[in-house]
Amino acid sequence: DISQDIDHILETQSALAVDLGGTNLRVAIVSMRGKIVKKYTQANPKTYEARIELILKMCTEAVIDAVHLNCRILGVGVSTGGRVNPQEGVILHSTKLIQEWSSIDIRTPISDALHLPVWVDNDGNCAALAEKKFGHGKGVENFVTIITGTGIGGGIIQHNELIHGSTFCAAELGHIMVSLDGPECMCGSRGCIEAYASGMALQKEAKRLHDEELLEVEGMVDLKKAEFVSAIHLINAARLGNRKAEAVLRTAGMALGVGIVNILHMVNPSLVILSGVLAAHYQATVQQVIGQRALTSAQSIQVLTSDLEEPALLGAASMVLDYTTRRIY
Amino acid sequence: DISQDIDHILETQSALAVDLGGTNLRVAIVSMRGKIVKKYTQANPKTYEARIELILKMCTEAVIDAVHLNCRILGVGVSTGGRVNPQEGVILHSTKLIQEWSSIDIRTPISDALHLPVWVDNDGNCAALAEKKFGHGKGVENFVTIITGTGIGGGIIQHNELIHGSTFCAAELGHIMVSLDGPECMCGSRGCIEAYASGMALQKEAKRLHDEELLEVEGMVDLKKAEFVSAIHLINAARLGNRKAEAVLRTAGMALGVGIVNILHMVNPSLVILSGVLAAHYQATVQQVIGQRALTSAQSIQVLTSDLEEPALLGAASMVLDYTTRRIY
Ligand SMILES: [Ca+2]
Ligand SMILES: [Ca+2]
Ligand SMILES: [Zn+2]
Ligand SMILES: [Zn+2]
Repeated sequence: DISQDIDHILETQSALAVDLGGTNLRVAIVSMRGKIVKKYTQANPKTYEARIELILKMCTEAVIDAVHLNCRILGVGVSTGGRVNPQEGVILHSTKLIQEWSSIDIRTPISDALHLPVWVDNDGNCAALAEKKFGHGKGVENFVTIITGTGIGGGIIQHNELIHGSTFCAAELGHIMVSLDGPECMCGSRGCIEAYASGMALQKEAKRLHDEELLEVEGMVDLKKAEFVSAIHLINAARLGNRKAEAVLRTAGMALGVGIVNILHMVNPSLVILSGVLAAHYQATVQQVIGQRALTSAQSIQVLTSDLEEPALLGAASMVLDYTTRRIY
Repeated sequence: DISQDIDHILETQSALAVDLGGTNLRVAIVSMRGKIVKKYTQANPKTYEARIELILKMCTEAVIDAVHLNCRILGVGVSTGGRVNPQEGVILHSTKLIQEWSSIDIRTPISDALHLPVWVDNDGNCAALAEKKFGHGKGVENFVTIITGTGIGGGIIQHNELIHGSTFCAAELGHIMVSLDGPECMCGSRGCIEAYASGMALQKEAKRLHDEELLEVEGMVDLKKAEFVSAIHLINAARLGNRKAEAVLRTAGMALGVGIVNILHMVNPSLVILSGVLAAHYQATVQQVIGQRALTSAQSIQVLTSDLEEPALLGAASMVLDYTTRRIY
């Protein structure tokens, strides 16, 4: 009846977004306009059973909260590391970064528990969808996004659409190799940009320097008392003049830059968007490597740092918002 | 009148194909069915003026021959190294492999001289068009071709169409880098697969070994009397047990393989076609590198060696045959 329709209009049309990364499992209520109304974060469990249980628990809690926040949840969008078949809602294969996460139907348990439609895609692909709907990718026909977190993900938009490839393995940009040997990667190969420039890779180098007592420099706050040595410590050490830390970051930035030049020479986008916490630290080096190593015709590319706080979550939400509103109107 | 129409039908609808490579300038009369009716080869001149003059001379000769061969030339297709704007018929930029070949309108002089429509595209892109019309790419929605000659070119077919990118620099597969340093490339960068695995790169290594008197092994035919040391001498030496020659070829094949894995992780085609004289020598190594270094979801890729004798020429012809016959019927 009419009063019910008005109720629905007065509620904010929203999506539940789930992001499964190498470190955290996050759930958010996201409004139609891309506002994160409420966010929940937990460590991503190491086993399949614990992970699914936690996803359902967090989603159920968020659905209840959504009622009180006057948000009408139209569906659930899931962003996850690994290769995803979005038509089937299945995670085909993940690297060791997320264990027990291959050949997993993620759509069915969520849809059965919440009675909501569920969309699933790879986290880098979701980051690209977020840029397209809410960020620098708005109205850009061909662009690429690279998101650096624990690992490195990516998404490629061509003719305004994500490319998934013949076996849902396109835009696995973290596993572009820039060395015939190089550091070992979680994927089993070597020399991938994820093994040089991800949060995990920098943390490994920070630990190595710390163990050799080469990380700490004057001015650093209480490194010895820090529970974890992290990429941030490495960045701080480099800022304060630690040459070894600088060299690690320079190699990481160069590896990322060469990987991006490879992208330019393959799909030649007009824009590259860097996102994730390390994006701002890499931007200048990436631009410099492009200047040194890209073909003349690819030099005009723009490299921007994302404005979005949570690209993977926003992209997961955008799948719900785009599909459900298309259906309704 | 009717008799003239019948004459036209009795003639073989054909294209003039021009291929401008790092070594040779070739022109061919190509029939609708992909048969090379007659072929002309000259060294590619080093200056713009000499090159244009020779192109026009060879094309004019071929047009006259075509009349006697009962071939009706519908247009001219040009395949060239470098970045090409096919809409404008302009070569935007070439590496040092073809000198004086940047910002060149190639369509106008040919069209003015021969009074025929002219299509132009990059040589690797033409090789992909040839595979799509006449080769292993028939009916394949997403595939990639890599052609090894003096340099290395490539073409990417996605959703049954070539991708050109935002500045006509897509599918520059020869300049995928697989090393942060690595050997110098004609493009000004380092570590490109062209600098490891092209005919030119292998010739350079063959010369180096020959100068150090490390190339010749028992059973090789008169290497000292050979006018040029070439990639073929290197391959023969490796076959006859020369460990240094083997190592060079192994590194070249591995570089090509890692470059191809990068392609799989970026556009994820269902098929990779290797063409050019060295294709057969690289196929096994490439397949092995994919087995070792590609993500599980990309392992199912097929790697084939092209059946086509002249992919670049056939692809250049296919642009003419596809466009003009679409117009006629
Ligand atoms: Ca991706
Ligand atoms: Ca090409
Ligand atoms: Zn990897
Ligand atoms: Zn190069």
